[in-house]
Amino acid sequence: MNKIRIGLFGFGVVGQGIFEVLRKSKNAHAQILRICVRHPEKPRTVQAAPELFTGSAEEVLDDPRINLIVEVINDAEASYRIVKEALLRGIPVVSGNKTMLAQHLPELIRIQKERHVALLYDASSCGSIPVIRNLEEYYDNDLLLEVKGILNGSSNYILSRVFDHRDTYAHALAQAQKLGFAETDPSFDIEGYDSLFKLVIITVHALGTYVAPGRIFTYGISTIHESDICYAREKGVKIKLVAQVVKVSDMHFTMFVMPEFVTPSKYIYSVDDEYNGVVIRGECYDRQFMFGKGAGSLPTASSILSDIMARLHDYRYEYKKQSYIQKPDYTTDLTLKIYVRYRETPIFDVLHFERIHEQYTSEESNYVIGDVRLSELIAKRPALGSRDLFLANIPIFFLDRDN
Amino acid sequence: MNKIRIGLFGFGVVGQGIFEVLRKSKNAHAQILRICVRHPEKPRTVQAAPELFTGSAEEVLDDPRINLIVEVINDAEASYRIVKEALLRGIPVVSGNKTMLAQHLPELIRIQKERHVALLYDASSCGSIPVIRNLEEYYDNDLLLEVKGILNGSSNYILSRVFDHRDTYAHALAQAQKLGFAETDPSFDIEGYDSLFKLVIITVHALGTYVAPGRIFTYGISTIHESDICYAREKGVKIKLVAQVVKVSDMHFTMFVMPEFVTPSKYIYSVDDEYNGVVIRGECYDRQFMFGKGAGSLPTASSILSDIMARLHDYRYEYKKQSYIQKPDYTTDLTLKIYVRYRETPIFDVLHFERIHEQYTSEESNYVIGDVRLSELIAKRPALGSRDLFLANIPIFFLDRDN
Repeated sequence: MNKIRIGLFGFGVVGQGIFEVLRKSKNAHAQILRICVRHPEKPRTVQAAPELFTGSAEEVLDDPRINLIVEVINDAEASYRIVKEALLRGIPVVSGNKTMLAQHLPELIRIQKERHVALLYDASSCGSIPVIRNLEEYYDNDLLLEVKGILNGSSNYILSRVFDHRDTYAHALAQAQKLGFAETDPSFDIEGYDSLFKLVIITVHALGTYVAPGRIFTYGISTIHESDICYAREKGVKIKLVAQVVKVSDMHFTMFVMPEFVTPSKYIYSVDDEYNGVVIRGECYDRQFMFGKGAGSLPTASSILSDIMARLHDYRYEYKKQSYIQKPDYTTDLTLKIYVRYRETPIFDVLHFERIHEQYTSEESNYVIGDVRLSELIAKRPALGSRDLFLANIPIFFLDRDN
Repeated sequence: MNKIRIGLFGFGVVGQGIFEVLRKSKNAHAQILRICVRHPEKPRTVQAAPELFTGSAEEVLDDPRINLIVEVINDAEASYRIVKEALLRGIPVVSGNKTMLAQHLPELIRIQKERHVALLYDASSCGSIPVIRNLEEYYDNDLLLEVKGILNGSSNYILSRVFDHRDTYAHALAQAQKLGFAETDPSFDIEGYDSLFKLVIITVHALGTYVAPGRIFTYGISTIHESDICYAREKGVKIKLVAQVVKVSDMHFTMFVMPEFVTPSKYIYSVDDEYNGVVIRGECYDRQFMFGKGAGSLPTASSILSDIMARLHDYRYEYKKQSYIQKPDYTTDLTLKIYVRYRETPIFDVLHFERIHEQYTSEESNYVIGDVRLSELIAKRPALGSRDLFLANIPIFFLDRDN
């Protein structure tokens, strides 16, 4: 591939960012030939020639000049159809759609192998932070113990406003929407699904195993209350929405997304505002920390550009860890120490605690700190959706293998 | 390469670390066949079979089973001979020797290209932080503006002791030596040469240009004094030994190693103790921050392991940026704002200041804050070696291109 000739799907903030970034990058050897959008005739602020635009996906996929599809549309179903079709035709694809990837990765990996075609998606997880590429290439050995981080900028922005600026949750959310960090329907971000989908993708490259999103405990920050924030402040910790995959023994790993009490000594404590931060822990290198802008037009676009450039050198993910001899299995059979704040919900009827460490009741609100099986949390997930409940993980250290 | 069969040169802390790490890594498909050391008959604590050891480099290089040389000896001259000889014979090499690499990279790059053989050295810069690989692969476009960081763990440990623990410099240095962070002759670390050599290597992969170490202004921390520390504390900043390469215009970049006043808002402010931290700034992604253990037996060994694993997939650095159409040139023709603390040296006879911002004299010590050309600092470097002088950079922002 001497020159990359791109068929671009989607021309929202990220698509326009890619257009801008390619214009700036003089050595890129890449050019956008066609742009497929829903409304090709719509007037646009970015100066792209009108003849680039088309409303027909077929026209782009059929164009013999195009040797790379870059897909940055919002609709996960449409994204899946386009990506799959392109790969089946042997056209390499760069995608940023985490929802689509988290649901369809096993099939898309299979197609990549069968058709010897590349699908790259570093931009799908943590925008400009090169997490996937590093897990795939650099931490390419079985010394990895844990990947843990703040993967969603919107919810982190809201929590930062609440903790550092003593803003109310409602005002912080409105502010996040105003600044464009959160969608008009923010549930994707604040209920933890965005983090979950990124975690699913990361785990494929961290440990070589795909776990379907539906099997993973996910709890967001939408029910956080002043009393939770007060409690955290009194204890000198912050509440962050944390996604993690962690080896709990030589043979097993676990993963979940939930709010966590984070002490000041932790790297992610100082990941504030719309930033993302990822900690990679290994047996020998202890902890590596990567930090940067996780979202936004240009950071995401520059990450897409890195994937485009990688195609110049025929790079593809090898999914090396999928062929490990000893691959750990996913388990939910372990105990977490959690904080549950509640008001009316009869929490002890809903959730079985193996042990209770603390219990507090008052006229305003109540909380309990206790040990619960992760499998129990998953089984009771629907009942934990009550609006008067809030859960947070109190981290315990799983595994520190003898050196 | 289905299985990597290694000839290991050097069995000090790092060499023994590699032995340990390979033993732990069950999926590594790599095996150490021979270990070349100066004294093969010396008794060793690590359980390596005695028949692995040899004192003859020829024996290892001649062994037809060996398809990778891993070189982790301290002696830069010996390292150069071994690495060059192996490459000339077409044997791929993994090296961690920054002194050797910083001096001989242009020749070693040429040999790699001529012989189609790979030399990998991610471990040479920042130990377990994958800086080189990311610059080479992920930040593979001309949007990069700056790479700046704390690249030397020993000097950072000393400065951390002094700032955070109010230790004396002399005691902190002794402590660093006791803990094995600093060499018995610590000048390599504390005079900035270790950082310098890493910076030279990083710049090849950041901007595609090799600049010989002798052309780069380097100033260490050995003359730091209580009065400098007091001054920094009063201003609410820390003094860190910082290495940086930065684009100062579209056509030029500069680089230097010197102590810097670091304000709390900077990422590297919180890089303490023996840790390393690197900030990568780009036009679109703003700042990325990578943080981790820069040195030590196992972190360095796990970085070497990443290079070994990369060879399983025939990975090599492509040095892509060397073929950029528009490559910025190295310049020292720019102004820095610096702090100079002095006692007897007639500083205004030694150094020409373009402008003086502040001046302070007392019976104990004096300082001046002023603007000096970088070329002037280089020209006067010998005179700046007086033991009663200390220099620190006060960062000014060079380039923020219009978006």
